[in-house]
Amino acid sequence: MASRYLDSETLKFLLFEVHHLDELLQQERFTDYDRESVGLFIDAVTDFSEKELFPYYREMDAHPAHFEAGEVHVHPQVARYMKRAKEMGLAAALFDYDDGGLQMPNMVVTAAAYIQETANNHLPGYLGLTFGAAELILHFGSRQLKDTYVPHMISGDWNGTMCLTEPQAGSSLSDIVTAAVPQGDHYLISGQKIFISGGDYKGVENVVHLVLARIEGAPAGTKGISLFVVPKHRPAADGSLAFNDVNTVGDFQKMGQRGYCTTHLSFGDHQDCRGWLVGEPHQGLKYMFLMMNGARIAVGRGAAAIAMAAWRASLAYAKERPQGRALSSTGKKDVSEAQTLIINHPDVRRMLLTQKVIAEGALSLVLLSSKYQDLSQTHPEEAERRKYGYLLELLTPVAKTYPSEKGIEAVSNGVQVLGGYGFCSDFILQQYYRDIRIFSIYEGTTGIQSMDLLGRKVTMDQGIALTHLAGEMGKTTAAAMAVEGLRPFAETLAGKTGLMKKVLDSLMNYAGKGNYERFLADATVFMEFFGNILVGWLWLDMALHAHQAISKGDTTHGQGFYKSKIHAMEFYFTYELPKSEAQARILLNTADLTVSVEDSLFE
Amino acid sequence: MASRYLDSETLKFLLFEVHHLDELLQQERFTDYDRESVGLFIDAVTDFSEKELFPYYREMDAHPAHFEAGEVHVHPQVARYMKRAKEMGLAAALFDYDDGGLQMPNMVVTAAAYIQETANNHLPGYLGLTFGAAELILHFGSRQLKDTYVPHMISGDWNGTMCLTEPQAGSSLSDIVTAAVPQGDHYLISGQKIFISGGDYKGVENVVHLVLARIEGAPAGTKGISLFVVPKHRPAADGSLAFNDVNTVGDFQKMGQRGYCTTHLSFGDHQDCRGWLVGEPHQGLKYMFLMMNGARIAVGRGAAAIAMAAWRASLAYAKERPQGRALSSTGKKDVSEAQTLIINHPDVRRMLLTQKVIAEGALSLVLLSSKYQDLSQTHPEEAERRKYGYLLELLTPVAKTYPSEKGIEAVSNGVQVLGGYGFCSDFILQQYYRDIRIFSIYEGTTGIQSMDLLGRKVTMDQGIALTHLAGEMGKTTAAAMAVEGLRPFAETLAGKTGLMKKVLDSLMNYAGKGNYERFLADATVFMEFFGNILVGWLWLDMALHAHQAISKGDTTHGQGFYKSKIHAMEFYFTYELPKSEAQARILLNTADLTVSVEDSLFE
Repeated sequence: MASRYLDSETLKFLLFEVHHLDELLQQERFTDYDRESVGLFIDAVTDFSEKELFPYYREMDAHPAHFEAGEVHVHPQVARYMKRAKEMGLAAALFDYDDGGLQMPNMVVTAAAYIQETANNHLPGYLGLTFGAAELILHFGSRQLKDTYVPHMISGDWNGTMCLTEPQAGSSLSDIVTAAVPQGDHYLISGQKIFISGGDYKGVENVVHLVLARIEGAPAGTKGISLFVVPKHRPAADGSLAFNDVNTVGDFQKMGQRGYCTTHLSFGDHQDCRGWLVGEPHQGLKYMFLMMNGARIAVGRGAAAIAMAAWRASLAYAKERPQGRALSSTGKKDVSEAQTLIINHPDVRRMLLTQKVIAEGALSLVLLSSKYQDLSQTHPEEAERRKYGYLLELLTPVAKTYPSEKGIEAVSNGVQVLGGYGFCSDFILQQYYRDIRIFSIYEGTTGIQSMDLLGRKVTMDQGIALTHLAGEMGKTTAAAMAVEGLRPFAETLAGKTGLMKKVLDSLMNYAGKGNYERFLADATVFMEFFGNILVGWLWLDMALHAHQAISKGDTTHGQGFYKSKIHAMEFYFTYELPKSEAQARILLNTADLTVSVEDSLFE
Repeated sequence: MASRYLDSETLKFLLFEVHHLDELLQQERFTDYDRESVGLFIDAVTDFSEKELFPYYREMDAHPAHFEAGEVHVHPQVARYMKRAKEMGLAAALFDYDDGGLQMPNMVVTAAAYIQETANNHLPGYLGLTFGAAELILHFGSRQLKDTYVPHMISGDWNGTMCLTEPQAGSSLSDIVTAAVPQGDHYLISGQKIFISGGDYKGVENVVHLVLARIEGAPAGTKGISLFVVPKHRPAADGSLAFNDVNTVGDFQKMGQRGYCTTHLSFGDHQDCRGWLVGEPHQGLKYMFLMMNGARIAVGRGAAAIAMAAWRASLAYAKERPQGRALSSTGKKDVSEAQTLIINHPDVRRMLLTQKVIAEGALSLVLLSSKYQDLSQTHPEEAERRKYGYLLELLTPVAKTYPSEKGIEAVSNGVQVLGGYGFCSDFILQQYYRDIRIFSIYEGTTGIQSMDLLGRKVTMDQGIALTHLAGEMGKTTAAAMAVEGLRPFAETLAGKTGLMKKVLDSLMNYAGKGNYERFLADATVFMEFFGNILVGWLWLDMALHAHQAISKGDTTHGQGFYKSKIHAMEFYFTYELPKSEAQARILLNTADLTVSVEDSLFE
């Protein structure tokens, strides 16, 4: 079934056929799940999204979260959503049975969150950050912290947040100054945190903040940062709650995602804000990155979801809106004919296919990353777990960035399909366009992700992650080489491996000479290049599975469905993949136009 | 002087040094103007923009035009702006002395409008459409129409609009159904027009609509469309005004440009709407295109202005905001150092330079187009006027599209420079981001412009326009070949001519076989390709003039200024121009993925 915002068939095709969720379900941790139960869960979440998320998407934009009389006011659906999501088990899905969880695969939970985000990307974050915060406490917190907080969080009664950014420390976490002073079994916390998603709002019972702060006398930089649980209200032994001096200073008004509050919090205005250390002192950033890595994939997932929703909305419009006529063989139009639907214009089709290959490619990338996450934790063999761990680390910044950056382009094409209506508030496209713009900024901007990819992930342990990736890609190209219709595409993709090597050799040359600034100067272009090729692989893989289904006479999704995947792959290889050539050319430039140049040249 | 939104030095460099406005001023029509008087005018408009436009930019977004109690309410500054602009002579600037005008060159009027649009793109449209409408009446209207309407329009007292779009006819003007029935010396008009910019608002004395409609019994398609003057209030001989049954039905709420009203008008609800034919019956579209051609360049100009403003705003931020540190030769950061300004990060510099080359390249293209317009009308030699006419026709769709499409990318880079703040309503970048999105839709979408470029302009009269363009580009490359530091870039650009030929040969092949749908299927990609190379030429030309200034020891703008132009050219050739290779590869594809394929493949 395809709705106005989601193509569920493609989601299931990717889960079960392309990324073989069945095999993952054979891991011991997931023995209670099978294809059927997962399918039922996906359908239930789809139904839930249609009823509890999509109907509120436009209103949450029209009536945004805002700060008034000392409190942040959010749409009443937020509370209802949290309650209903709890009943669905969405908050508990990922966790161990022992912790009250449902022990679902990450890949399934990712699919569930994606479905919700296609329907309304303003709501799932409230839940997502809550279980991300609970995950951190479960992994690194004391038994007492776990018992005190986690049950309330996975029940959906208490919210959770992650508090990193400070006014003077955005992308530079080294410069965090929020202070923690020891006092008995806890610390006194003081400082300002900004851009805290779902940070606080009127009516929430309690909010459990996971706060990065610096213990008095800690070393400078990131190695002096510790992690604290800082609740808005601290719970007493009898279950009563006392205000913990976590103050809401304001809510940032934004161009998009206006239903998702973005608060400014001030800790310890009255010297009575208590925090409890998570794990060891000075290890906070390492712990936070557990959550951050998941959060990065979640950001990519959200962007992929918006790209999907915008594509479906503009596709529906293109199939309904008559406008213009086809050109005849004389180059003229016959005005006595009735107008044709705009989906029949090649330029509109190009825009629709551009959206399709980006939206579905992004989804495939996000699902694959979550699969690697599952396998890195649950595969019975240590060597395999390590391999999938490397693949996950390599793909994480790309899974965050490709959907976010290319998603902007996809949604912009969606706006364009509607023409003037695309810009009008009465139509949904402009909201997708505004909403998606934050994703390339969330959880580390594209520049930060790109430096992570090139400066850390590609190079770590002698490039082993890239070797593993080449192995995975090689499996697809080898299989595709054996299929006549796919061979030319497999050959093209195989050629990209050599191009990648050439680019990396050239860039590594700067690192070898200690010129790290120049090495990473074009990291963002490298990210575009890498993402372009990676998604080319994912499309070839989709086409390969579609071809296999057609050959087998598989009727799961219908022959037309499988043909459309092969067609979209051809479109990707024709209209998207050639861009990697220009990107390579840019990356191979030996000029230095941004590093050792005077400031005056930027005027 | 550079402000928060405008680099006036670059504007003057382009006007006087690169595009030789002085030479244009030697045409007989412009003998009353010289470099000094134009400079004073530019400065006066800059000052006017700072006082009367920029201060209202944010408020006009926060308090958008809206429909209430049967009328559109706009910001009170609209009325004040129209009054002040009239006093400045801005409405009359372009027209003949005989018509009460100032007989300024189009190029100077373009610069003046650009300056205003950098300050506030919501206001100048009210004036721009007014003089566009007046221009149409002057060119094609009867003496009586001219005398009745034009003086009130160029005085700024009455507004003007152009009414093309109807609910069932957006991009397809063939399908206009607004009816005109002869009745004595006039016609009775009835029909709906939507998306009418500046269409009507509370407090305006009168609005003169230039309306496309179909006279009873007219042939189908565009050849049956006539043009009418339809005032909101019809003036009687004694100067009194009577309501002419032009009804405001609503105002479209939009994602951006919210201070510029976009009305829905209904003509003749009470069978009392009179229209007066302009020129001959059935020639309306031809006439309208006079205005449309100017309007297309004006749209490109507005987008170029927003790109400039966003670039200056993000540059100012990058020079003030400390964040992070440079990487040392070990690849680490020294956290004991103070944070550096973000302009010192190579990735930020790349984003700033990307904005600069797009914003200034777009401005150069717009000014050059307006210069061609002037020369096509005022050059003493007929052959030269024809040549510039061809160049103008060729460049018009590109001057509309390059600033609009690449401007979106430029402004998005500006948002990204600010990180999270870029997305926040308290910062100006998000408004530029929302505002600029309409420009690739206005006055014919990018798809329409691209078909005009490839399907008409490139091919007209055996490709003569392209031959003229190659001649102009050849002059620049020949001069640059003689300069050692510029030679490699001149060679690169020269190589693009061959690539262009190869691409066109391949595409024309489809047209030759009568497959016009396939010929134009990738017209939008061709537009990207063409614009990319064209702006490469404009940058080489800027670098050439900067080099000449440095060689001569010219101190007009300072040596640093000229060096920055050469540096930006190198950046363009390194980071932008290589994209034409991938675009060519895409255009050379021989697959048919969007024309003769089944609808089901788009699911």
